[in-house]
Amino acid sequence: MLVDFTALPARDVYRWMTTTITPRPIAWVSTISAEGGPNLAPFSFFNGISSNPPMLMFVPVNNREGVPKDTVRNLEATKEMVVHIVSADLAAAMNQTAALLPPEESEFDFAGIAQVPSTRVKPPRVAGARVAFECTLHSITKLGEGPGASNVVFASILCAHVADDVVVDGNRVDPGKLDAIGRLGGDAYCFTRDRFEVERP
Amino acid sequence: MLVDFTALPARDVYRWMTTTITPRPIAWVSTISAEGGPNLAPFSFFNGISSNPPMLMFVPVNNREGVPKDTVRNLEATKEMVVHIVSADLAAAMNQTAALLPPEESEFDFAGIAQVPSTRVKPPRVAGARVAFECTLHSITKLGEGPGASNVVFASILCAHVADDVVVDGNRVDPGKLDAIGRLGGDAYCFTRDRFEVERP
Repeated sequence: MLVDFTALPARDVYRWMTTTITPRPIAWVSTISAEGGPNLAPFSFFNGISSNPPMLMFVPVNNREGVPKDTVRNLEATKEMVVHIVSADLAAAMNQTAALLPPEESEFDFAGIAQVPSTRVKPPRVAGARVAFECTLHSITKLGEGPGASNVVFASILCAHVADDVVVDGNRVDPGKLDAIGRLGGDAYCFTRDRFEVERP
Repeated sequence: MLVDFTALPARDVYRWMTTTITPRPIAWVSTISAEGGPNLAPFSFFNGISSNPPMLMFVPVNNREGVPKDTVRNLEATKEMVVHIVSADLAAAMNQTAALLPPEESEFDFAGIAQVPSTRVKPPRVAGARVAFECTLHSITKLGEGPGASNVVFASILCAHVADDVVVDGNRVDPGKLDAIGRLGGDAYCFTRDRFEVERP
């Protein structure tokens, strides 16, 4: 079937995109407000964008009322973040942090997530995350307006905390040990346990 | 361990990023040159970025000699593309199109991939792809220089071709029927067959 994206409401476009552009990595992002209150939220419009300089992107999409998320407000105010990779054992905790809480309430407290101080930025990091990127804000590009409108965050990566037990040869991460999960559409996720290899030509 | 990204060569940064930011969806992108020759290449720095307006992004990273890929040259010249989702049955064909061919040689021909005309753009689409987004170029943002430098492509989605047999309720795609694969680090990929559901709070 042919789906005309120029003639669909934003929520239908969102459903088509999120059930087809799969599997998506999950950025679990901690920030702090101007008052110092921590926030933690997951985003699956996420990926690397450059290794020279080291940069990643993720996209907080405005809610159905067209309101930007706390993450965006915090980044505009304090310019720093920690981006965590979500391993399967953190799925339930990550999902809890997708709850809509008042800005002054910490998702770390709400979901009972242990935090540790970061090395080069102010937002705390998730103690149990096997990979955590400490980043500074490069830019926020606004796309569209209202429900489904986006804030495309480009972040510069300063350093990464990587759990020793997922590292191989001192220079990369083993996918089986990282055990990352990916986002599909609706309430669905995938594991990365069922893998195959293809040698590049 | 703490990995200082500001002190690493680009290829080491790339390895850390691609073995941790996982699983990544794969954009299999067809374009045409100014002379009309088709190109087809896979990119795993890819995701949706907005549903209102409908937009996606992907990133052709310059090669080790710092040279941009044919996809970038074609987009600068002709401004249109088709972005396909890679199902498991297309993995081998997709991988063939990652080969370095001279600009005038078609990956469709090289890998024996059947093509059909698109509806609203000039580049052909892959006949066997279950999802194909016809897009126009919004912008290309250059990040960095030399090896590992990036061309961040923002694309506006006009329409999507979706195979009838992967659609559910006429308004979304079933992940089991789409059977998409995800990119991990090195030569590794994952299936999306091993799934679970978590209800949002």
